[in-house]
Amino acid sequence: MRRLFGGLEAGGTKFVCAVGDGPHGVLAQERIPTTTPAETIGQAIAFFREQEAALGRVHALGIGTFGPVDLDSRSSSFGRITSTPKPGWANTDLRRTFQDALQVPVVVETDVNAAALGEGLWGAAQGLDTFLYLTIGTGIGGGAVVNGNPLHGLVHPEMGHIRIPHDRTVDPFEGVCPFHGDCLEGLATGPAIERRWQAPPRSLPGDHPAWRLEAHYLALALSTFVCTLSPQRVILGGGVMTQPSLLPMIRTKVVDLLHGYVQAPPILEAIDEYIVSPGLGPRSGILGALALASLLPD
Amino acid sequence: MRRLFGGLEAGGTKFVCAVGDGPHGVLAQERIPTTTPAETIGQAIAFFREQEAALGRVHALGIGTFGPVDLDSRSSSFGRITSTPKPGWANTDLRRTFQDALQVPVVVETDVNAAALGEGLWGAAQGLDTFLYLTIGTGIGGGAVVNGNPLHGLVHPEMGHIRIPHDRTVDPFEGVCPFHGDCLEGLATGPAIERRWQAPPRSLPGDHPAWRLEAHYLALALSTFVCTLSPQRVILGGGVMTQPSLLPMIRTKVVDLLHGYVQAPPILEAIDEYIVSPGLGPRSGILGALALASLLPD
Repeated sequence: MRRLFGGLEAGGTKFVCAVGDGPHGVLAQERIPTTTPAETIGQAIAFFREQEAALGRVHALGIGTFGPVDLDSRSSSFGRITSTPKPGWANTDLRRTFQDALQVPVVVETDVNAAALGEGLWGAAQGLDTFLYLTIGTGIGGGAVVNGNPLHGLVHPEMGHIRIPHDRTVDPFEGVCPFHGDCLEGLATGPAIERRWQAPPRSLPGDHPAWRLEAHYLALALSTFVCTLSPQRVILGGGVMTQPSLLPMIRTKVVDLLHGYVQAPPILEAIDEYIVSPGLGPRSGILGALALASLLPD
Repeated sequence: MRRLFGGLEAGGTKFVCAVGDGPHGVLAQERIPTTTPAETIGQAIAFFREQEAALGRVHALGIGTFGPVDLDSRSSSFGRITSTPKPGWANTDLRRTFQDALQVPVVVETDVNAAALGEGLWGAAQGLDTFLYLTIGTGIGGGAVVNGNPLHGLVHPEMGHIRIPHDRTVDPFEGVCPFHGDCLEGLATGPAIERRWQAPPRSLPGDHPAWRLEAHYLALALSTFVCTLSPQRVILGGGVMTQPSLLPMIRTKVVDLLHGYVQAPPILEAIDEYIVSPGLGPRSGILGALALASLLPD
């Protein structure tokens, strides 16, 4: 009999719910706008109940959520969204709420860790044990799998907030991060591009200087992540990466920045296969949530 | 019966060899200058043979070595130092040479991963599963333990070579890294301090501006490592850290730089216990090598 799983990509603007068993086996999917926890979670629970009535029981539910989220199984707030500034959502107990309502095992991860696991199981990181998934959109987030398991540590990584060199003689823009000004997120998210150039990123042609500068900042970040995490591959997703001129420029600049120091053939000889687009395309997030559920031991 | 282990801290200037079973049980230790592989390794093998004759067999040998080193057990050069510029040492097969000579299991790690494991087993990171050991001396290196295991990935981290903000109006120094100029190593190693201030670091008093600048650079790096690896604790060792004014300044600056973004009590409320000196003092390296051997499964 076919084993079905539930997946929930819990984002700041929408919740995406799915039931299925993999990238070619999504049997039902729904988008729910993120409003209040009661309304949004209520609709998500209703979706899963309807689908279970139609398709049969799901074995587990995987949730990849916006953060910060408590991933420490020994903590009293395990599986909760914690200190988010998003109104009404602080201390929302995703894990317990869904578990109580659906009576299935629920596994909660950051959205980016879930996407990374999805890419590892079905996408661009198959067969690897240590790799990085980065999304560059309205925010910048990184999910790392190390020795086959997602990296949590103290809380979970906040890769968007690393400090990178910012030459104000070239780019006097102050940055948009409310916490750090010109950290990576401050300089290189979609909203940062829009504010700096006073135009929506989608309206800027591929040869606009905006993209060269964007590639420079992302390459600085990637060279730092390569030196820190030593990933076997780096996957770049998110809305900003839909600009096709960006990925080739990033690859070239990462090689330039590392300058032969990391003596690894994937970087020196095959950068096009080292820094790649998501194998699951824009579905890394929701399929990552399904992957979370399907990776849960019986 | 007491189980003894061998440890070898293989450094660019000296090899430290030890036999024992922990920080309070080092029964023999010797320093051998690093000259040629044949001479230095020959003397190290002689040391272990003599000690085994006197003290009994060691169960395993742990080697924490300078790099780059191949840590991939599926690779044909597994356990070798690879592309080091150190004359004569490229392609030295540490693992096999010691294994063949001593007929014991040999486990090879980077020097900093070994030190991290030693701190985890016996030092300042006991009971933690994800943490960072950083040494700041003639070079800068980082060893990370993630979910209880050392981080290798593609090669192994090269944390000294991340790029950090460098304001040339404050510090016009170009940096000393032959690969990257003003990467972290370029700006913040002992030799960088010496070149910038034209004086040996040890001669600079604790209130010299050199130390405030050094704390600034190290805090930039630490804030990046915290955002990327989310360690439960950060341990700072190495010769540069022997300047007592440095650690308190680094702690203050890391909290300032993170600016409340990482909502974790260890950072917000207990930074003195979050960024710490090695529990094993200057012996993290050699005891880390012993730890490597003692952690090997039977």
